[in-house]
Amino acid sequence: MIQNMVEMDQVWSEHKALLSEVEAEIRKALRSEVELVNKVAQYIIDSGGKRIRPLLLIISAHLCDGIDKSFINMGGSIVEFIHTATLLHDDVIDNAEIRRGISPARVLWGNQASILVGDYLYTLALSLTVKIDKVEINTLLADTCLRMAEGEMLQLNHNNDLNLSEKTYLQIIEYKTASLISTSCLFGAIIADAPDAEKEALKAYGKNIGMAFQVADDTLDYMADNDRLGKSLGEDLKEGKITLPLIHLLRNCKDSERIWIEKLIGSEHFFPADLKKMIDLMTAYGSTRYALKYAQDFSDTAKKDLASFTDSRHRQSLFAIADYVVQRDH
Amino acid sequence: MIQNMVEMDQVWSEHKALLSEVEAEIRKALRSEVELVNKVAQYIIDSGGKRIRPLLLIISAHLCDGIDKSFINMGGSIVEFIHTATLLHDDVIDNAEIRRGISPARVLWGNQASILVGDYLYTLALSLTVKIDKVEINTLLADTCLRMAEGEMLQLNHNNDLNLSEKTYLQIIEYKTASLISTSCLFGAIIADAPDAEKEALKAYGKNIGMAFQVADDTLDYMADNDRLGKSLGEDLKEGKITLPLIHLLRNCKDSERIWIEKLIGSEHFFPADLKKMIDLMTAYGSTRYALKYAQDFSDTAKKDLASFTDSRHRQSLFAIADYVVQRDH
Repeated sequence: MIQNMVEMDQVWSEHKALLSEVEAEIRKALRSEVELVNKVAQYIIDSGGKRIRPLLLIISAHLCDGIDKSFINMGGSIVEFIHTATLLHDDVIDNAEIRRGISPARVLWGNQASILVGDYLYTLALSLTVKIDKVEINTLLADTCLRMAEGEMLQLNHNNDLNLSEKTYLQIIEYKTASLISTSCLFGAIIADAPDAEKEALKAYGKNIGMAFQVADDTLDYMADNDRLGKSLGEDLKEGKITLPLIHLLRNCKDSERIWIEKLIGSEHFFPADLKKMIDLMTAYGSTRYALKYAQDFSDTAKKDLASFTDSRHRQSLFAIADYVVQRDH
Repeated sequence: MIQNMVEMDQVWSEHKALLSEVEAEIRKALRSEVELVNKVAQYIIDSGGKRIRPLLLIISAHLCDGIDKSFINMGGSIVEFIHTATLLHDDVIDNAEIRRGISPARVLWGNQASILVGDYLYTLALSLTVKIDKVEINTLLADTCLRMAEGEMLQLNHNNDLNLSEKTYLQIIEYKTASLISTSCLFGAIIADAPDAEKEALKAYGKNIGMAFQVADDTLDYMADNDRLGKSLGEDLKEGKITLPLIHLLRNCKDSERIWIEKLIGSEHFFPADLKKMIDLMTAYGSTRYALKYAQDFSDTAKKDLASFTDSRHRQSLFAIADYVVQRDH
């Protein structure tokens, strides 16, 4: 494992000024004549968490020595708009009652408003992309949105599917999560007019940290450590989403245990004791360890993807992000 | 009223060959790796009704003397993809149980699949747009999608709002319906490299037939004539959508009648006798007549928008469409 010299906190604070400009660009772009559109959109954007995608775009552009501020601001807002559009639609699809400890937009304004404002934000992102007027970027962003919708459909198609293969699971998370993260990095490289090799490297890095992030996130859903006390666990199980630790468990457990899991996934009733038993099984069979190792491997590969860049503050920042995505709750 | 020399049936059959090519283009573009995406998308496209938007694009391009077949095919599929994406999302938003006499996608595959395939089709449309590689078209299509989402949000915001003004109602239908129809015509003119004056004329024509179409459609929802026997009526009322005939009625009826309407709109229970009473009131106060006249005026204005074009078969076809949108169920 490559050791990073930079802490994640430092990375955030170093890019605070540029991230604020992205934030300003987001607010500037949200100027619908229909006040309710702005209100719902601003709410979901404010509750969207950290700006990891704009951050990746900023650092990638820096790494390739191309810091055109206006493009960075626009690019950052574009990837964040796409991300928030998916959050709005995902909450409706998952029937979510809570997100990051607060009420999702669908609970406050209803599913209908969430669907429509999601549509609005997708389109706003693509309409901002048009303003950049680079076919490469237009194509990239449109393709990414197609990929994301396909990933979500594939996931839906395999809901409650105990025979979901590792391969298909990896395809799902690549499409639904890693694609936009990869695109954020590549977007930065394109803005910087980087040579193809650098673009490819950053695209691969982005894909791999995206994979690491999602595998880790899926695994954390079954880990009740101290840091996560009070957080909801087993959400994926409730929603019928089959993720890597569960795939591993199903491959290794006894038939009787498999039958028990099968009943649990199909059921509406889900007790804390069931979740505890599931977590115990995952520990006993090494499923949690297996999945975390998988995430770590993706993170390590991501770092190797950057081998062709000379060592620099920005490369170290990207290493720090590769560590960050597997280490904790995001 | 300008008399048209061409019948609508003739218009359809004259452009049958080009419409088939658009159909082929649609099928060609629907090639997701995720089979379920293609399946749901094809279902909604097959049940999307006639291809009035591609037809308008084709005739508009012809009228401006510019028939680049590949662009027409692509343009036709783009406007149809956007239209079907909105159908998918609208059905979820309206909780629709039936559309054009068959089950909507949401009943067959669920709301989740409908939302995601809607997202997919929106993005597919914009990704095809990118391939045309004309900023004017990219901007037009992205702006149109923004407008449509805004129109739907505005409508949602005024659900069950008995004080909805005629002005806001007109804004809602312009955004949610007329904008894409107007864009289909303008798109044809752009493909044909038409001068600005012709573009403006076709854009205005498209907007006005779009308005005529929606006002007529909203009015037909309260008209139980022989042609519409067995069709469901009063759908808008059930969904809390306040449309032009109702706005007119509310402005003219007695206080006691307004109170009765107020109760009816808020209520879950809705009997045929209630609908009959509503229709009788609309007849008594001339609300149906008022709304139909409104639709006819839009249709007449649309024809006048084409005054600068010399008389031709294609202009007559557009006149026939202007008549068609107000005359019957679509």
